Amino acid sequence: MKDTQLVEALRDAVGSQWVLDAEVDRTVYAYDASPRHRALPDVVVLPASTGEVQAVVRLAAERGVPVVPRGQATNLSGGTVPAEGGIVLSLNRMNRFLELDRENLTATVEPGVITAELHRRVEAEGLFYPPDPGSVAVSTLGGNVAENAGGLRGLKYGVTGDYVIGLEAVLPDGDRIVTGGKNVKDVAGYDLTQLLVGSEGTLGIVTRITVRLLPLPAHRQVALAVYHDLEQAARSVERIIAGRIIPATLEFLDRGTIEAVEAFAHVGLPTDAEALLLLAQDGPEEQVARDVAAAAAICREEGAVRVEVGRTPEEGDRLMAARRAALSALARMRPTTILEDATVPRSRLVEMLRAIQGAAARHRLTICTFGHAGDGNLHPTCLTDERDEEEAERVEAAFEEIFRAAIELGGTITGEHGVGLSKREYLEWKLGPAGVAVMTAIKDALDPRHLLNPGKIFPRSTPRRLVVRQG
Amino acid sequence: MKDTQLVEALRDAVGSQWVLDAEVDRTVYAYDASPRHRALPDVVVLPASTGEVQAVVRLAAERGVPVVPRGQATNLSGGTVPAEGGIVLSLNRMNRFLELDRENLTATVEPGVITAELHRRVEAEGLFYPPDPGSVAVSTLGGNVAENAGGLRGLKYGVTGDYVIGLEAVLPDGDRIVTGGKNVKDVAGYDLTQLLVGSEGTLGIVTRITVRLLPLPAHRQVALAVYHDLEQAARSVERIIAGRIIPATLEFLDRGTIEAVEAFAHVGLPTDAEALLLLAQDGPEEQVARDVAAAAAICREEGAVRVEVGRTPEEGDRLMAARRAALSALARMRPTTILEDATVPRSRLVEMLRAIQGAAARHRLTICTFGHAGDGNLHPTCLTDERDEEEAERVEAAFEEIFRAAIELGGTITGEHGVGLSKREYLEWKLGPAGVAVMTAIKDALDPRHLLNPGKIFPRSTPRRLVVRQG
Repeated sequence: MKDTQLVEALRDAVGSQWVLDAEVDRTVYAYDASPRHRALPDVVVLPASTGEVQAVVRLAAERGVPVVPRGQATNLSGGTVPAEGGIVLSLNRMNRFLELDRENLTATVEPGVITAELHRRVEAEGLFYPPDPGSVAVSTLGGNVAENAGGLRGLKYGVTGDYVIGLEAVLPDGDRIVTGGKNVKDVAGYDLTQLLVGSEGTLGIVTRITVRLLPLPAHRQVALAVYHDLEQAARSVERIIAGRIIPATLEFLDRGTIEAVEAFAHVGLPTDAEALLLLAQDGPEEQVARDVAAAAAICREEGAVRVEVGRTPEEGDRLMAARRAALSALARMRPTTILEDATVPRSRLVEMLRAIQGAAARHRLTICTFGHAGDGNLHPTCLTDERDEEEAERVEAAFEEIFRAAIELGGTITGEHGVGLSKREYLEWKLGPAGVAVMTAIKDALDPRHLLNPGKIFPRSTPRRLVVRQG
Repeated sequence: MKDTQLVEALRDAVGSQWVLDAEVDRTVYAYDASPRHRALPDVVVLPASTGEVQAVVRLAAERGVPVVPRGQATNLSGGTVPAEGGIVLSLNRMNRFLELDRENLTATVEPGVITAELHRRVEAEGLFYPPDPGSVAVSTLGGNVAENAGGLRGLKYGVTGDYVIGLEAVLPDGDRIVTGGKNVKDVAGYDLTQLLVGSEGTLGIVTRITVRLLPLPAHRQVALAVYHDLEQAARSVERIIAGRIIPATLEFLDRGTIEAVEAFAHVGLPTDAEALLLLAQDGPEEQVARDVAAAAAICREEGAVRVEVGRTPEEGDRLMAARRAALSALARMRPTTILEDATVPRSRLVEMLRAIQGAAARHRLTICTFGHAGDGNLHPTCLTDERDEEEAERVEAAFEEIFRAAIELGGTITGEHGVGLSKREYLEWKLGPAGVAVMTAIKDALDPRHLLNPGKIFPRSTPRRLVVRQG
């Protein structure tokens, strides 16, 4: 259905060249980095300012047309797929770095700024923005905020939401709100900033972001531990944390991932290993040395056949880059790569790894696992072919078992990828009916007609409730 | 109005001795630590379990009676005053320390646990729960969560909400939800944990709290800088932060506060000083020494007439205890002490201090100022007599000017005390009409009859909207 009036009005609002309605253009915006979801938008709009975003949202609201905000669409849960058609609103033109406040240690950016660009800008001044999702080189701050992106430094430093202290957002009716600011403490009413973070574009469209920064740590060291036994690696993680060592990064790779990464990146990973741990610590030199030595000792006690401490920063960077290549490396193996992010409390890692291996074996699937072991945030990654319907059913069944195991171990269905379309049927497993009802009530209250990113987060079976406001 | 049926039903639900309806008992629950608000509840209930809380809330919901959750009522914004009567629900009997998880570094407590007790329990195991509101010795974790309490270590470590990772709460209809858990990363839907934190008991009654813990820092050092000029002290704070030094604590006391504290606590503070900075740093020994030395050098450069670095931990503790005594010390001076918490970005401290002094002079009031300077979180404290109506009007006018100045400087109306009854008329200054409308919509969606802690946060003038749900 093409609404030529709407397209004309959008052209008036943002300029002709920033409204795309040819099929070839719309096809580009029909998917994101999740393999299983695709849907064609009716039209794509690229506004350049908050005012233009407001104009687009108001036009959509007048006509009851869905609006799906989108950054670089690197998300892995179908969050930016226009499941119910409508307008895809790309924020990529809003990519100005607005301010680096050296006195308050904050940065303010538009949502289209690439995360790695923010890193470069602040690190050049001796400052530090810790969140670094795997997609850091291409993903945008706006997308990171919408998904509450995690990454490799979550263990010590937390995730995107831990650094967002102020937002500007456009609401479903086109109104603009400003939440938080540059204040370290601010309790003026409900925490709308954190409500918007991770709301996957379903409550508002974020148009400006203020993040707090830290001083850049003075030193950094990377270590690699090699195991012939998966569970020894997982136990090492548990013991490091329980030993009160909080590394910046503590990553895990299983045999399948190691082989794929080595074939892809040729960094000299030991392809005969069953598991690797990659550990990074940063901070004052003395503490880094102490922590890395203590963690290495634990790894050896737990049975690591080799522990290598990076001799130079470059060697460390090379190892971390190899870990970052895991998804790309695995994606080369078979036509479809399904990367999940079941997450458990750190003390349940061994059990979770066993559950993943069991599910893969039972359903005759190749599932490689890597991830942020220190966070309990694993990425079981199924190498499959979505065109094979019989195999696709086994994949579905295996992941259901994996999510159920995560919940039973006190974990969650998604640690950092979001619910989107991929996990909405599992949401109630984590939250229970009362939890889903509260979230639905919030969605209904702020977006009663479900125009912002419809179909995301909430199970399809949830009946929409009609909210009538009076007075 | 006494509803004897309700009282009987409450007695059945929680046991006779835990339902108080005599006037003498109800009077005890008519106020909190804010001087200007008082209201008698109809009945006071002290449930012992989540199930009993649910039963009380259901009885209240059936009858349309307000429920006001309450811990130790140390809050400073009228948040626990039963402004519209009804049931005061004390959570003080739910004070069990449920679990210290040494593997995942979390603690789980009931809301009635005293914050200092949590500190003692976890520090005995070499762990650390950083939030430490001024009221730490008497306030409860439940109250800290409801108000998103800050404290003296916010600069480096953040506030209560930064440590809460899981909650159990009873909703206005008596349903129970469980949010978050022990997972470091969890993005399954909206962040209900952080929505409940700081919601001042208006969205749900928190019945169980899981907080994450850090390893206890190995070392700690306290330093004191003495100034003959207020602005030199404020500039020192700005320069320390801009110099990339993030102390655990960076407190400010003006002359009036110094005099009051010294008269109260006799710790040897220099009563001829115009201002003091009290700095504490913790962490690895080398870093603590470096940071304290660097900060001390900045203080001297900015004109401190004396900088003393605590020689022993006991000396440090004594100085910090003196700072903690500031409110008690000031409260002895005149019949009424009004402690506010206007907060600005750290780089605006000098301007904010000038605005406070200007307002005090213009309205002929005694306003002493101390607070968490490193957070931009100041506590201008008016020493007055609420029985003097003419003076009370001047106090009101002065604080209006102070809040307006905070907003104009990019600050907020409350950094850590909450909105409650005290600041509800100023909420829109910070949030704008659209921000207040979003918060009101959330309140209406989750508590359509405004039964949980009614009258708090939202301006009296906000018309209640009737929400009718269908389907």
